[in-house]
Amino acid sequence: MNAVTKERGSIIRFEQGRIAQKSDLVVAEHPVTIKINGEEFATLVCSPEYMEDMAVGYLASEGVIAGIDELQELWVQEEEGFVHATVSRWSPLHRQLYSKRYVTSCCGASRQGFVFFNDAKTAKRLHDVPVELSFDDVFRLVRQMQEGSETFSRTGGVHNAALCDRQGILLDRMDIGRHNALDKIYGYCLRRNIPMNDKIIVFSGRISSEILLKVAKIGCGVILSKSAPTALALELAENLGITTVGFVRGQSCNVYTHPQRIIECRPAPNPNTADAERPDA
Amino acid sequence: MNAVTKERGSIIRFEQGRIAQKSDLVVAEHPVTIKINGEEFATLVCSPEYMEDMAVGYLASEGVIAGIDELQELWVQEEEGFVHATVSRWSPLHRQLYSKRYVTSCCGASRQGFVFFNDAKTAKRLHDVPVELSFDDVFRLVRQMQEGSETFSRTGGVHNAALCDRQGILLDRMDIGRHNALDKIYGYCLRRNIPMNDKIIVFSGRISSEILLKVAKIGCGVILSKSAPTALALELAENLGITTVGFVRGQSCNVYTHPQRIIECRPAPNPNTADAERPDA
Repeated sequence: MNAVTKERGSIIRFEQGRIAQKSDLVVAEHPVTIKINGEEFATLVCSPEYMEDMAVGYLASEGVIAGIDELQELWVQEEEGFVHATVSRWSPLHRQLYSKRYVTSCCGASRQGFVFFNDAKTAKRLHDVPVELSFDDVFRLVRQMQEGSETFSRTGGVHNAALCDRQGILLDRMDIGRHNALDKIYGYCLRRNIPMNDKIIVFSGRISSEILLKVAKIGCGVILSKSAPTALALELAENLGITTVGFVRGQSCNVYTHPQRIIECRPAPNPNTADAERPDA
Repeated sequence: MNAVTKERGSIIRFEQGRIAQKSDLVVAEHPVTIKINGEEFATLVCSPEYMEDMAVGYLASEGVIAGIDELQELWVQEEEGFVHATVSRWSPLHRQLYSKRYVTSCCGASRQGFVFFNDAKTAKRLHDVPVELSFDDVFRLVRQMQEGSETFSRTGGVHNAALCDRQGILLDRMDIGRHNALDKIYGYCLRRNIPMNDKIIVFSGRISSEILLKVAKIGCGVILSKSAPTALALELAENLGITTVGFVRGQSCNVYTHPQRIIECRPAPNPNTADAERPDA
């Protein structure tokens, strides 16, 4: 198995005015080429673990498979960096539309905020998201993810993503590529039929449009991050029904979209209505 | 002109146990589709400034143009997010090889560390790099870049890259996309015939293989970053002749490859030889 970190034999460390030779751990970048029905589709550069999950998550994200039942075969040449997938519906159109711009209006990005054709096909608006959480949950989940990210603290070189419920972290994945960490979570859940609309994503990096779209495709209604969101990500979050919480640091944070899932952000009940509904009032 | 930041009218800020409504600045993500001789080539999501430079740097990076003289025409539809380029050498082969895996050996990534075909074509080993700098220069240049990055400090959402010589920063660019910031520098220099082999790149983010390759294509022999490098980036840096300095924080840093350009890292001169060469000894 390929290691996610590599020992670098001899580096020069300069500290407090002194030069020393030492060894150091650095993160690996492993190229993985996904072949679909024998044809080269895309090459991802990733941290070499959970490659099957990553490939499944990626194929679903890109709309190559609509569900796990459309994946007939998957095998990994780990050392060589190839994943071979056989899918039931495959047409040259997939390849042509891959990474093509989705232009629906006369003025640049589409009104919904989609940039790429495949995203417009696969990211759907979330309805009936049965998640609620408090600010205390937000702070605790982000803290738990940070405490659990050992490779990051050892090498400073990876992104972390975690799938959570209110109680804590269910699954966490790291990768040198922001989106790969989420694809690994997506693929894991798809292969095990784990429902995702009642879960929460915690992410270590910026919430870009690409990350927001992955969360929508996974089907989670809430994303938390210690970092900043972009304007396009927030436009998509608004339209796709996702609660975005950024700059989670210590005991403070910003709620950008769909605050109704944060308990403290809900409008206080109208005392008259509440009274009328309480039989014992 | 599109702004690199956008005002977000109403967010919910939670701090010290209190909820407040406020407005906030977030970074824009602007999709730009590069069309070459009328054909859609690639869509970049970027911060909307210096788009001509970015497009020129990108086309040179990908080997679509070998020099600025091969670019016959370039015009930007800024609002709509299109850059139209007319180039003198253009064949369908370019499109086919774009983002194709470069496999030269039987065991995964090529021996040189190249992952993509176009990189192997455009990133050449640097010879005769006339740069030397001291650890003091390293710390000063990184500090200057950090102090100058206003958008980052206001929004937390962008990467910064700066072109420097020993004396200080010559040009700095920011972008939400890591590689775009470097493409903006590359294009600027190409369009003005500015020599780059005597310059230094300072970068705000991790040194991944993609970033290292951009630096090699730009033709700079030294990269400095406060963040970590990856193992593949270091393999490429070793082979392409680039000095890599990471984890530059305060007065400490790590030199990973080609330390000979850092004055203090050079082997002490042999006193006998030195004496023999000094006529006044």
